[in-house]
Amino acid sequence: MRQPDNKLRLGMVGGGEGAFIGAVHRAAANLDGRIRLVCGNFSREPDNNQRTGASLGLTANRVYPDWPSMIRAEAALPESERMQALSIVTPNQLHVPITEAALDAGFHVFCEKPAGITLAEVTRLQRRLAASDRHYGLAHTYLGYPLVHQARHMVRNGKLGQIRKIYADYRQGWLAGGLEYSGNKQAGWRTDPSQAGASGCMADIGTHTFGLAEFVSGHKITRLCAELHSHIDGRQLDDDGSALFRTDGGASGVLTASQVCAGEENDLTLRIYGEHGGLEWHQMQPDTLVHRRANGDIHLLRAGTDREYLLPTTRHSLRLPAGHPEGYLEAMANLYRDFASAILDGTPCAIPGIDNGLRGMAFIDAMLRSGGHWTELEIPSTEPHTTGVKA
Amino acid sequence: MRQPDNKLRLGMVGGGEGAFIGAVHRAAANLDGRIRLVCGNFSREPDNNQRTGASLGLTANRVYPDWPSMIRAEAALPESERMQALSIVTPNQLHVPITEAALDAGFHVFCEKPAGITLAEVTRLQRRLAASDRHYGLAHTYLGYPLVHQARHMVRNGKLGQIRKIYADYRQGWLAGGLEYSGNKQAGWRTDPSQAGASGCMADIGTHTFGLAEFVSGHKITRLCAELHSHIDGRQLDDDGSALFRTDGGASGVLTASQVCAGEENDLTLRIYGEHGGLEWHQMQPDTLVHRRANGDIHLLRAGTDREYLLPTTRHSLRLPAGHPEGYLEAMANLYRDFASAILDGTPCAIPGIDNGLRGMAFIDAMLRSGGHWTELEIPSTEPHTTGVKA
Amino acid sequence: MRQPDNKLRLGMVGGGEGAFIGAVHRAAANLDGRIRLVCGNFSREPDNNQRTGASLGLTANRVYPDWPSMIRAEAALPESERMQALSIVTPNQLHVPITEAALDAGFHVFCEKPAGITLAEVTRLQRRLAASDRHYGLAHTYLGYPLVHQARHMVRNGKLGQIRKIYADYRQGWLAGGLEYSGNKQAGWRTDPSQAGASGCMADIGTHTFGLAEFVSGHKITRLCAELHSHIDGRQLDDDGSALFRTDGGASGVLTASQVCAGEENDLTLRIYGEHGGLEWHQMQPDTLVHRRANGDIHLLRAGTDREYLLPTTRHSLRLPAGHPEGYLEAMANLYRDFASAILDGTPCAIPGIDNGLRGMAFIDAMLRSGGHWTELEIPSTEPHTTGVKA
Amino acid sequence: MRQPDNKLRLGMVGGGEGAFIGAVHRAAANLDGRIRLVCGNFSREPDNNQRTGASLGLTANRVYPDWPSMIRAEAALPESERMQALSIVTPNQLHVPITEAALDAGFHVFCEKPAGITLAEVTRLQRRLAASDRHYGLAHTYLGYPLVHQARHMVRNGKLGQIRKIYADYRQGWLAGGLEYSGNKQAGWRTDPSQAGASGCMADIGTHTFGLAEFVSGHKITRLCAELHSHIDGRQLDDDGSALFRTDGGASGVLTASQVCAGEENDLTLRIYGEHGGLEWHQMQPDTLVHRRANGDIHLLRAGTDREYLLPTTRHSLRLPAGHPEGYLEAMANLYRDFASAILDGTPCAIPGIDNGLRGMAFIDAMLRSGGHWTELEIPSTEPHTTGVKA
Repeated sequence: MRQPDNKLRLGMVGGGEGAFIGAVHRAAANLDGRIRLVCGNFSREPDNNQRTGASLGLTANRVYPDWPSMIRAEAALPESERMQALSIVTPNQLHVPITEAALDAGFHVFCEKPAGITLAEVTRLQRRLAASDRHYGLAHTYLGYPLVHQARHMVRNGKLGQIRKIYADYRQGWLAGGLEYSGNKQAGWRTDPSQAGASGCMADIGTHTFGLAEFVSGHKITRLCAELHSHIDGRQLDDDGSALFRTDGGASGVLTASQVCAGEENDLTLRIYGEHGGLEWHQMQPDTLVHRRANGDIHLLRAGTDREYLLPTTRHSLRLPAGHPEGYLEAMANLYRDFASAILDGTPCAIPGIDNGLRGMAFIDAMLRSGGHWTELEIPSTEPHTTGVKA
Repeated sequence: MRQPDNKLRLGMVGGGEGAFIGAVHRAAANLDGRIRLVCGNFSREPDNNQRTGASLGLTANRVYPDWPSMIRAEAALPESERMQALSIVTPNQLHVPITEAALDAGFHVFCEKPAGITLAEVTRLQRRLAASDRHYGLAHTYLGYPLVHQARHMVRNGKLGQIRKIYADYRQGWLAGGLEYSGNKQAGWRTDPSQAGASGCMADIGTHTFGLAEFVSGHKITRLCAELHSHIDGRQLDDDGSALFRTDGGASGVLTASQVCAGEENDLTLRIYGEHGGLEWHQMQPDTLVHRRANGDIHLLRAGTDREYLLPTTRHSLRLPAGHPEGYLEAMANLYRDFASAILDGTPCAIPGIDNGLRGMAFIDAMLRSGGHWTELEIPSTEPHTTGVKA
Repeated sequence: MRQPDNKLRLGMVGGGEGAFIGAVHRAAANLDGRIRLVCGNFSREPDNNQRTGASLGLTANRVYPDWPSMIRAEAALPESERMQALSIVTPNQLHVPITEAALDAGFHVFCEKPAGITLAEVTRLQRRLAASDRHYGLAHTYLGYPLVHQARHMVRNGKLGQIRKIYADYRQGWLAGGLEYSGNKQAGWRTDPSQAGASGCMADIGTHTFGLAEFVSGHKITRLCAELHSHIDGRQLDDDGSALFRTDGGASGVLTASQVCAGEENDLTLRIYGEHGGLEWHQMQPDTLVHRRANGDIHLLRAGTDREYLLPTTRHSLRLPAGHPEGYLEAMANLYRDFASAILDGTPCAIPGIDNGLRGMAFIDAMLRSGGHWTELEIPSTEPHTTGVKA
Repeated sequence: MRQPDNKLRLGMVGGGEGAFIGAVHRAAANLDGRIRLVCGNFSREPDNNQRTGASLGLTANRVYPDWPSMIRAEAALPESERMQALSIVTPNQLHVPITEAALDAGFHVFCEKPAGITLAEVTRLQRRLAASDRHYGLAHTYLGYPLVHQARHMVRNGKLGQIRKIYADYRQGWLAGGLEYSGNKQAGWRTDPSQAGASGCMADIGTHTFGLAEFVSGHKITRLCAELHSHIDGRQLDDDGSALFRTDGGASGVLTASQVCAGEENDLTLRIYGEHGGLEWHQMQPDTLVHRRANGDIHLLRAGTDREYLLPTTRHSLRLPAGHPEGYLEAMANLYRDFASAILDGTPCAIPGIDNGLRGMAFIDAMLRSGGHWTELEIPSTEPHTTGVKA
């Protein structure tokens, strides 16, 4: 039986006052009107937890003191009432434990990236999901941008010819100073190995450059030679790094992720070149895709529902005609919307999932192991999960 | 019974399948989780109406066959259930009649612009609102952009010195061909005097340039000299026009709005200059405000919750740190959010309202009357309404 | 004796130390190695005059104390030695008198714009030139930019269809303060009616917007409705103005020129739209021409000798492959180069000439007469001169 | 005794019809009117040689059949007539032999980069120059851009704090296809080891990224880990490569140079970050320098003689007020002008010289040796030459 309002009932762990990404997930989930937040455990601090729940219009009995009790209690509710999927927006070290508990109780999961903090635990999770029918979405938000899909399909359709070079850069500046020593919550956990895992910058944004490079090129990065750096006294995790790499499709490239490029915002850029041309995309101007042809022609592709030169899949993930900018929230909303459709309507769930998460963990692992030497990505042999972009 | 969720209960007229702006309003209303759509009359075509309602998760009994019956029926529901506010997204000629009926029944109104189709009816509406305690929001979406507020406050705080020049341009290209003859719904009603009123382009986008110029400068445009044009055989309304103008603050400027700039998207731009510097803002890159000083210094102000150089009011209307773009839906969401807060929490409702709407009608009226001669804006003498930006 | 070097022997009036445009003309004349400066009268101040001449490597006997004696003395030299053409870079009021004297003595003339200070004197000059075989080049430098030619030819070849809208803007900020009161030489004469003529801003930069609009569109502006302004106490000439206008080809548009847009540099922009698309060009990024098609396609045309999509005439005026920027000096050098070729090699001299100058004066005249009313451009009936772009 | 016209008498080897860089050197040398071309050996093909000389206005007796005879004959002319300096614009393998012969005969040298084709020969040349009083300029044109100097001085003055990250990229696309197989002269010699030396892309443009990174940062790159690639069947030299690197100042970074980024023009970009901020500069928009501060402030510095916020050394190398673009020819003209001043007036010659050339060769050498392993730059111990930027 279906809720009369035909909306996905979502629960959330994390995202209390002072957190950043939780509110972003909620806005993205709200945008298309197909998801309703029904319960949450937003903070380990009881006051924060209750305040957040109340401000979101939840009744007190569905604001839970901790995530195990939430999963237990929700599972005990009537099927037509209980949450159907759980959104996990906690620090990284909890991603796998909560996901596993949610799956145990039969819930679908939508998780902030990275999927976990070790390659081993994410491999375990992948295998488990591959054997289940639950959906698992991973918030690789940048892969929700319409023109990123357009780029991927142009590459697949041979517009660039054989791909040769891939450059993916993500430059931030917010950790150029020692923000973690000034009480900033975000900076605090992201630089703390016990919460963030063995990597800082690579886990936080390096995985975005990696994921974007693979998603658009359709290639798999097989080996890399990387150096990681840390620029603040006492900081235990990497805040910066770059790698030369090779792909299974015969391309090579460079990947950079840094959080100490003082003054930079979220300068994620992809440049990809084949025999016949190149594509350039900037996250900070996501509604333009630059297509250069070998003869020097430069074409600007623009996001917009009214742009017939865009592929149907691209236009499907747009809401507005060209020139009315859609941004980051809309990109994440695209992931949530397709996740909800998969559960409510049984459509295929072609959003980033655990298979992407597993490759991302293998990437982080290789970056940490490289130490300036060429290193293979070690991808455990697994079966693919149903959620996820298919080659 | 439902109220515990502390959300504004919204109804909607218009916005069925094939319409554009209704879906935009719904997404914007959804974004911040403070508004719940509870009823609607989405189309005069019964099938479209029901399909739209169902797809939005409404129960059939709150999808009404016409707007008079909706207003009547909702008013008859228990106070805790019935809609609190009505969103009007129909063609222009219905804006005033529906607004008046909604006010009669005690509902707040959020209306797509323009407020109406004649200066006379909007004057009547303004006077009525000025005497009531109902809120009335007008979807001057571009005034919801955070950096537009920043610009306004920089001007008020004297950063530019005495304002001398104002240039406001809005260039679109979608009516460069005779789109209304190919069955396009949007183009159809917007070029039909019986639905759009006496003006096409000026009512549709000219009012945006006018509103933006006045909002940021803090000046009132008092007189103008304009030419309107129509470029397609058989098209009855203007699709293009420009005006020289003067303000009550001693500035002069130029205003352009066109829908026949073939290939242009939504190129709304404001440039404003004073003794000491200038500001430049482009709707298509809304997260950057260019500030030039007389000595040649160029400063880029960037939207972002983490930008301490922005005013609190600017940061209040942002959701993301700099570099994660927010766009058009977020701008409209800012209007809906403040509208909802005003009703739910009693906060001041400083969004565009009927006073802006009335000035906008006077602008359209003067543009239509000018015929290439200097013409005064005729603003009826009225009391201000509580909803609206205060000087 | 010297002639074997096959270079045009040029003289110059004006351009001493402290002047701006004279040094620019000399650099532009030098660039392509076809012109040799052989004499000059650079300043009325004897020391400045001699110092400038010496620094340019001229022998003292060809640095003249005033322009009448220079013209006389040069005319008396053997034909193979004397200057062949005179470059005039003085304040405006001397343009016509010096030109006439130079023509009397048989010299070709290359003159800084405007051609003169009254419509009457320029009409007289035009008629005289039309009856002579001397070349007369006018430094409408912006018409020397390669992509401006590309734009003109794309319009002529029908790429945009019937032209409907033309917007030409030139925004500067250098006269936002009272620079003329601080001893600035440039500002001094340009705001002094006895040296600059009856117009400041329109004569200085308004003519550029006018010339650019006509050159690219191929239309003639026939009538306009303008307002001029002056923003500094005691300033006698206009420092700002805008006009609505109509063309003989059925297009309409807006033209703006201002020197009080505080903080702006040399923001000259042309936007032109026809039935099928539009072109946009910015002087401050002169190596890119934006071509939009009605279907939303956006194409960037880039300056470069290696760009086969450019017309031969465009590539002829480029020196470098795409991506190595050419700028303002190269644009003026294109005018000097074609001027020199016309004299040395007898090639057609398709650079701006007195016919452009005459239309420019008629434009200034109409702008000054308009006072906010629609006004016809009064173009005296004349025969065309051989120098100049032909329709 | 000095030529009455006070100009440097220049000879040239290379630069006949069909060559690219020779004409560029001539235009750059012409621009400021301080240099006169007096002789040349432009091509090994006699017709081309004579035609080029004649078109440049040279008398036939100073157009020489080969460079050895030119050097010999010029040295035999009276001191006041003979060339003073020789410009070398041949393929790379002749750079050192011609330079040595010119020095033997007492001439100053201005050489296209790279200085030579092996580290050994350039080391020998450096040592010889260090012991002589002749000037030697190397055409690292990008180091002639005014805002590159501005960036260097801002770094030196501590505006960014301790430098941490340096990213230098140069992306071209002209060798994405096998242009050398279609008779293109440029492509032919640049991909032929017997003319270009052991490296293609690194020698041609990699040295620019290296030189720019060192020049602006003031750091020396000490070690690197690089991969070079070649993408066309039969192409013997690298056409692409990237390196991770470390500097003597404790910074790290990435350097990329590619000629197979299909569709790219001359996209040379530098990004440099320190504790307190970053600078970003793009060769294709050379008149803007982006300065970001750690707090998010973004400042655009603009080239222009009227920009008082620029350093005197920056303004010295500009010719125009802000907003009138200067480009690549002007950048090279800055090198020629300072080279000419050094010889004519005895001013210091702070342009790139043989010390830069030697470091560039050591860079190429290390890139070729690296093969994916960390490799030290091997800089021979030498004394500095008088020509060149001093630390």
